[in-house]
Amino acid sequence: MIISIIGIGLLGGSFALAVREKYPRAQFIGVDASPVHGQLAIAKGIVDEIRTFDEAVAVSDLIVLAIPVNAIADLLPSLLDRVPDKATVLDLGSTKGLICQAVEGHPKRAQFVAAHPMAGTENSGPGAAFRELLPGKNLIICDRDKSRSDSLKLAEALFRDIGMKIFYMTPQEHDLHLAYVSHLSHISAFALGLTVLEKEKDEQAIFDMASTGFSSTVRLAKSSPQMWAPIFDQNRTNVSQALADYIEFLQQFKQVIDQQDVTTSLEFMQRANVIRRVLEGIEKR
Amino acid sequence: MIISIIGIGLLGGSFALAVREKYPRAQFIGVDASPVHGQLAIAKGIVDEIRTFDEAVAVSDLIVLAIPVNAIADLLPSLLDRVPDKATVLDLGSTKGLICQAVEGHPKRAQFVAAHPMAGTENSGPGAAFRELLPGKNLIICDRDKSRSDSLKLAEALFRDIGMKIFYMTPQEHDLHLAYVSHLSHISAFALGLTVLEKEKDEQAIFDMASTGFSSTVRLAKSSPQMWAPIFDQNRTNVSQALADYIEFLQQFKQVIDQQDVTTSLEFMQRANVIRRVLEGIEKR
Repeated sequence: MIISIIGIGLLGGSFALAVREKYPRAQFIGVDASPVHGQLAIAKGIVDEIRTFDEAVAVSDLIVLAIPVNAIADLLPSLLDRVPDKATVLDLGSTKGLICQAVEGHPKRAQFVAAHPMAGTENSGPGAAFRELLPGKNLIICDRDKSRSDSLKLAEALFRDIGMKIFYMTPQEHDLHLAYVSHLSHISAFALGLTVLEKEKDEQAIFDMASTGFSSTVRLAKSSPQMWAPIFDQNRTNVSQALADYIEFLQQFKQVIDQQDVTTSLEFMQRANVIRRVLEGIEKR
Repeated sequence: MIISIIGIGLLGGSFALAVREKYPRAQFIGVDASPVHGQLAIAKGIVDEIRTFDEAVAVSDLIVLAIPVNAIADLLPSLLDRVPDKATVLDLGSTKGLICQAVEGHPKRAQFVAAHPMAGTENSGPGAAFRELLPGKNLIICDRDKSRSDSLKLAEALFRDIGMKIFYMTPQEHDLHLAYVSHLSHISAFALGLTVLEKEKDEQAIFDMASTGFSSTVRLAKSSPQMWAPIFDQNRTNVSQALADYIEFLQQFKQVIDQQDVTTSLEFMQRANVIRRVLEGIEKR
């Protein structure tokens, strides 16, 4: 079996490393806009060889799109136009609405599987990829009924074999939930980073006074802008609503603090404490 | 030497455990409003015995206040009124302005040292205390010139001996910086937890779709409301300004997303990425 990874970064690279461990005789082709990333991916053992996009598409059984979501949406229709009948196309993008819409009604739609692994770190590039990123994590497949059964079976088999648990939903449900449980966390961290950097012009002062709590909360502000700008753009309706809800809570909190209403401040935090139950589940996973 | 820990929680308990390791023959007395916390603190080896507040004050060389900041500010003047001449009083509270102000001009002000260790976790109580919390972290002492030299020397020696690095500043500088690098992170996490819990009524859905990124960003929402409500209240002017700055950045970000201005969105995140340098320093510490 020949698997092509289009975009050999954190996610594409980690997927390849995990699948290679289970299927050591599968052949992996890498395609990447950056020749350096290609070299690093070969040196790390992520892929066996680097080929052009056209060469990779012509020979692959499975083509995995692990590039920014705007590039996936742009590329997918023309990729399906010329994909061989035997092949399956799989995307790992963090939004699903516009990507699924881009190939809605396409004559080869059934060869495409829309997936999103609930995993990531704030780092990017092939150097950030690691075999343990995906095992034990959850995966969402959208519009499963629009994929043909052998394509779906191949994708599901690989995800299950590397230890992922699969959930199914519509692209609309996916994008709405993700705006809250993922996209919003990233924006809150980016804005926190900006606020502190703006106020504390002296980075040494932040360093001296910040504790691990700050470090944990702002960690996602290290994430790749090139990856996240298109996600926020594609999911802007949901992200905008999530941000409006978040700003509303912050404004309420601010008002409570300004009014010295310690009782309501306590209540706010006690309600938020419920998140402990959820987090304990995530951390045990 | 007899050291009393008033409030045997995460911070008081961790301080005692670290100091005990360096000074195994020092005697530790615990004072806590909760009898159960007292039992647990003895069982864990944090303190040797539990005494009433009055008993502890009468016999101690060092009295460490590790209770919520409002309780510190309330208690401190009357504690100083009757503290023996030989004793030093040390507080570990997360705000310094109102606490220092509460004893400004007090005849025994010089026996008091105002300190704040830049360390914590989202957990509380004696069960959460651990010997490694403070070593390697930074500590701020405020208004050092107002403490007499032997009291200051004792506090500094203990903090240095357990591996902390000491910084000095005014209470006003402390509270302003901390509003940005600590208090704001906590509010952003509490509000994020509330926003997601409010939207996703089904906790299982959050669990299924959240990744470690969400978990990291929202971790501080597990923090103790009883500890944090008084901190936000005491530091409300600075916290309110920090929140206003943060909300302003979030609103700008929202507008950029609503307007599909991907270029400015990229720029925002690239500016926030600068935080990586700072965080690498904190994580290496």
